[in-house]
Amino acid sequence: MKRIAVDAMGGDHAPQAVVEGVNQALSTFPDIEIQLYGDEAKIKQYLTATERVRIVHTTEKINSDDEPVKAIRRKKEASMVLATKAVKDGQADAVLSAGNTGALLAAGVFVVGRIKHIDRPGLMSTLPTMDGKGFDMMDLGANAENTAHHLYQYGILGSFYAEHVRGVKQPRVGLLNNGTEDTKGTPVHQEAYKLLAEDKSINFIGNVEARELLNSVADVVVTDGFTGNAVLKTIEGTAKSIVGQLTGSIKNGGLRAKLGGLLVKPTLKKALGAMDYKKAGGAVLLGLKAPVIKAHGSSDAQSIFYTIKQTRSILEAGIVEKSVAKFSVVEDSND
Amino acid sequence: MKRIAVDAMGGDHAPQAVVEGVNQALSTFPDIEIQLYGDEAKIKQYLTATERVRIVHTTEKINSDDEPVKAIRRKKEASMVLATKAVKDGQADAVLSAGNTGALLAAGVFVVGRIKHIDRPGLMSTLPTMDGKGFDMMDLGANAENTAHHLYQYGILGSFYAEHVRGVKQPRVGLLNNGTEDTKGTPVHQEAYKLLAEDKSINFIGNVEARELLNSVADVVVTDGFTGNAVLKTIEGTAKSIVGQLTGSIKNGGLRAKLGGLLVKPTLKKALGAMDYKKAGGAVLLGLKAPVIKAHGSSDAQSIFYTIKQTRSILEAGIVEKSVAKFSVVEDSND
Repeated sequence: MKRIAVDAMGGDHAPQAVVEGVNQALSTFPDIEIQLYGDEAKIKQYLTATERVRIVHTTEKINSDDEPVKAIRRKKEASMVLATKAVKDGQADAVLSAGNTGALLAAGVFVVGRIKHIDRPGLMSTLPTMDGKGFDMMDLGANAENTAHHLYQYGILGSFYAEHVRGVKQPRVGLLNNGTEDTKGTPVHQEAYKLLAEDKSINFIGNVEARELLNSVADVVVTDGFTGNAVLKTIEGTAKSIVGQLTGSIKNGGLRAKLGGLLVKPTLKKALGAMDYKKAGGAVLLGLKAPVIKAHGSSDAQSIFYTIKQTRSILEAGIVEKSVAKFSVVEDSND
Repeated sequence: MKRIAVDAMGGDHAPQAVVEGVNQALSTFPDIEIQLYGDEAKIKQYLTATERVRIVHTTEKINSDDEPVKAIRRKKEASMVLATKAVKDGQADAVLSAGNTGALLAAGVFVVGRIKHIDRPGLMSTLPTMDGKGFDMMDLGANAENTAHHLYQYGILGSFYAEHVRGVKQPRVGLLNNGTEDTKGTPVHQEAYKLLAEDKSINFIGNVEARELLNSVADVVVTDGFTGNAVLKTIEGTAKSIVGQLTGSIKNGGLRAKLGGLLVKPTLKKALGAMDYKKAGGAVLLGLKAPVIKAHGSSDAQSIFYTIKQTRSILEAGIVEKSVAKFSVVEDSND
């Protein structure tokens, strides 16, 4: 049985969306057990599942504008903190929240704790590509700065995820850089390139450029948290702006545009389906002793369902155990 | 008379596109004079203008895959090098090339030279926004690493450009960061934030996020060269992928989609017109003793025309003179 602690109070549509996603996941997956942390009365309004679920009542919660580290330290009874503690105490195998990202990262590092030899856990998401296959990018912003060694570790962690959770054989690992030659980038990138190239356990394909990300240039893209955050937000912002511009022009166009819009609508909808983030699940903080998963703040019930599904796959794949084994060997041999 | 040295042999469609752009510019702007550097016989095939133009013959040229610094040093007779030297020697006021970007940056720094007190010239482009106003972003990759002081100088240079070349009153200068609070980012960003905020001669509006760039969140966006390069390429790649995905789905769709596509085509074309890079001109290496302008490698005659138009505006605005004056005051007061 896979035991998942869920912060019922995190996200824009909590607790309704969270609890409804949980209902759906419990009826779909007979091998999961859910602990819901939050306001019992509010949770019960939406909870229809009766088996393999229990509520841990608390009224305290972390808000989206709380200062992350302070919130974790001071709000000791917050739903997110209690859910994270359940993992640390061995009462749950993984934790999921759609709440304050920074607070969840802090709770992951300070409460769940890092895997031995992993310096800086990183945030990873599966982003959509045009062919629908997707790619895993990390770090997406858990850290503002990273060393070459961090980037190297992200290559290994991302490769594990792509292979064991997404089922990609020999995932192609690329280093995000400002050109494809191995001399490109800062000294950090040049050093990371060497470390990644030397480790024959991963399929490192060299530098990749941001222009090619949506064209499936790699299965795993390694980057520092600052650049990763900027690139992720640029993809989101550009996609939203362009789709908005095009659909807006049809809506505000003349009769001809409107009629054409009606005709192409199903085709465009299908084409944009390849870019649907929902099914890819949430962002995973990799490098911790247990999976810590961040669902999107605007998650609806369906997104929560897919994020629980993803959490279940991560537990099934044994990513954490594989990471522990790999890093104890890699780093001990460096000692 | 504004004297512009043009590398006739740079770019994918040289010399034809370059020379045809020059023809158009000469007939439109009576106050410019063009020196064309390159193979005289080839240039003459396309040159129709007869006044205010002369050819400086050379057969050597820098290729797109040449190592930039080496190429500048060894190919002393290359069209790009001779055009740049003409500026240094006072025979031209600005130089323009659609060739090897790295080589042009190197020629700018080593041949034209930096303005006193400017540490690291940066590459700036006007990028499109959905409302058609555009924003200036720098550095786009002239440097792999930047200090806080470099970023501060980019704020001033970008502000000059937006105000005097694009005519934006009190341009809003934003610092690209991973959040809007002033504590965000690396120590470099935090320090750059302070330097920008302290200089009351610019209209600094604080941190901006990559998600908002195409929504006109700022008129000038300051960033380090590595992040700027990644964000620029992400915008280009995402826009291209999405538009390609949508138009491809209509083309490959059924009769209904094709008919709808015909009807919406003019509307979509107009909507995407706001994103047309061509009219914005090329990328400008700011911080040098004379304007050095990089036209896109795939430039057609129309792009070259707009880049010459932009070069003329930069000369007319006296950006270099204004920068010289500003930095002699700012930096001397820091001594």
